[in-house]
Amino acid sequence: MNRHGTMIVVTEQPRTGRRPGRPDTRETILAVARAKFAAAGFDKTSVRAIATQAGVDSALVHHYFGTKRELFVAAIALPTDPSKVLDRVAAADLEELGATLLGAVLAVWDSENGESVIAAFRGMISGGDTTLISTFLMQIVLKDIADRVDEPQGSAPLRVNLVASQMAGLLVTRHILELEPLASMPTERIIASVAPTLQRYLTGDLD
Amino acid sequence: MNRHGTMIVVTEQPRTGRRPGRPDTRETILAVARAKFAAAGFDKTSVRAIATQAGVDSALVHHYFGTKRELFVAAIALPTDPSKVLDRVAAADLEELGATLLGAVLAVWDSENGESVIAAFRGMISGGDTTLISTFLMQIVLKDIADRVDEPQGSAPLRVNLVASQMAGLLVTRHILELEPLASMPTERIIASVAPTLQRYLTGDLD
Repeated sequence: MNRHGTMIVVTEQPRTGRRPGRPDTRETILAVARAKFAAAGFDKTSVRAIATQAGVDSALVHHYFGTKRELFVAAIALPTDPSKVLDRVAAADLEELGATLLGAVLAVWDSENGESVIAAFRGMISGGDTTLISTFLMQIVLKDIADRVDEPQGSAPLRVNLVASQMAGLLVTRHILELEPLASMPTERIIASVAPTLQRYLTGDLD
Repeated sequence: MNRHGTMIVVTEQPRTGRRPGRPDTRETILAVARAKFAAAGFDKTSVRAIATQAGVDSALVHHYFGTKRELFVAAIALPTDPSKVLDRVAAADLEELGATLLGAVLAVWDSENGESVIAAFRGMISGGDTTLISTFLMQIVLKDIADRVDEPQGSAPLRVNLVASQMAGLLVTRHILELEPLASMPTERIIASVAPTLQRYLTGDLD
């Protein structure tokens, strides 16, 4: 019985790769995680605090969702798993990082899931849940990259901020404002024009 | 008497440089202009069509508002007059254009009117009135610049699209997502990091 006093039947899509667990526990953990990440950000939110508020043990949270980053990705319910894309980027040579990252992200936006990703971005921009999108950018998409480009030491946060700025702006102008010719341009031409920007932000001189 | 049957007294701020005209006619023209620019874009909207729908002569529209671009700026009711900023940018040497544009725009965002400008951008991103913001970017902010950077011929639209992408992304990451260190960084450091990007988009090799 739900809180309206009606019997409901939950039919779930099969989830691959993890034991399903009781749906209500999973959903409770996700709802708590989403609220806590949005309120306090990624660093200040612990798996333990999420577990406590959800009334479960931390070990169960890890068992269901894996790492804190994986829990975050599950909580924001992206239609695509960023790790698939990002593992490929992480494998790129340092001097190819700009072009590889740009190619990977443009491919996601142009994919069948692209519309949902763009809608999620747009919703977060307008809605005020900016902590979630900042966390997604800095802790999920750009974290491993930041670890590789901290030269000189301490420069990595600015480097990945600048990369985020160009990527976000490309999404806004190509997919939301649909400025021409950018909106209709094949990805190879965009990569040719924009990858040098990202590469300079990642490994070039910034002053 | 207004349409609710109450007597109202309109006290207007003094408008410099133009005769005030009857407030209701002015407001009608602005409302029609806003709707038409949003629906059809800048190029496909004529002053004549706006005048006709507002029930006035084109000459009166020009008399009240000046050029079509000035009418557009009045219609979107920006808290700041872009021509003041843009005239300074237009006077810059070609090789200083990136830094000058960036400095001018960052100064607006950090000014007392900045919050309203950013709120307007955010509202347009979320609301779906993207034609208005695209028009503002391409026809108002970047039009005169485009005329100067069409080398090789035909490259100007892509060049200013790319400039728009980096500027929009900077606004999103610095002022909406407030990524650190970008959000707290003095403008001179941002100019040092980002102006070379804009300059390359404006006058550099894009392939």
